[in-house]
Amino acid sequence: MSSHRPAPEHTHPADVPLLSALDALADPVRLQLVRELAASQEWTRTCGSFDVPVRKAAISHHFSVLRAAGLVEQRDVGPKRVNRLRRPEFDARFPGLLELVLKGD
Amino acid sequence: MSSHRPAPEHTHPADVPLLSALDALADPVRLQLVRELAASQEWTRTCGSFDVPVRKAAISHHFSVLRAAGLVEQRDVGPKRVNRLRRPEFDARFPGLLELVLKGD
Repeated sequence: MSSHRPAPEHTHPADVPLLSALDALADPVRLQLVRELAASQEWTRTCGSFDVPVRKAAISHHFSVLRAAGLVEQRDVGPKRVNRLRRPEFDARFPGLLELVLKGD
Repeated sequence: MSSHRPAPEHTHPADVPLLSALDALADPVRLQLVRELAASQEWTRTCGSFDVPVRKAAISHHFSVLRAAGLVEQRDVGPKRVNRLRRPEFDARFPGLLELVLKGD
């Protein structure tokens, strides 16, 4: 079975500028997505499964920013798009940043 | 001698939300200001002494964001406003963040 959507484009954390990483994390909705992903098993969360107060199109945009910042990897499984936090790769590029962000306020 | 300007308002790093800190640093001009301050002795840099491609009003705005994020302390010395990076206080609030940012890309 093939998906009708193009596969999502990714940027590897090794290629992410510092400003992109900071900008991706400096948003309350994206911070919430990252925190929920960190608390979930890899590849178990679909894009619609997050507790954020925004519509589907906005969530897609936020996930696109997170992919471009090397924070999230996505793949399509049948009609579902599932996610994982790229924690080890991102940690290698920006040591300590995710830990700080996940610790909360 | 008194200054004709009101003294700048500050937020102590202990009272800064994570999102404010990330947002303050997710900007190329403010990143440059922070990096130059980190490389300078405290209270030696006036607001006009930084190598950033923006006008005076924009620099004032950027410094206001940096003060609100607990990153910069300012004081007026006669007609000059001088700056210091609040490195120890900011480090206590957000361990490792400044180090990451100062390391560069």
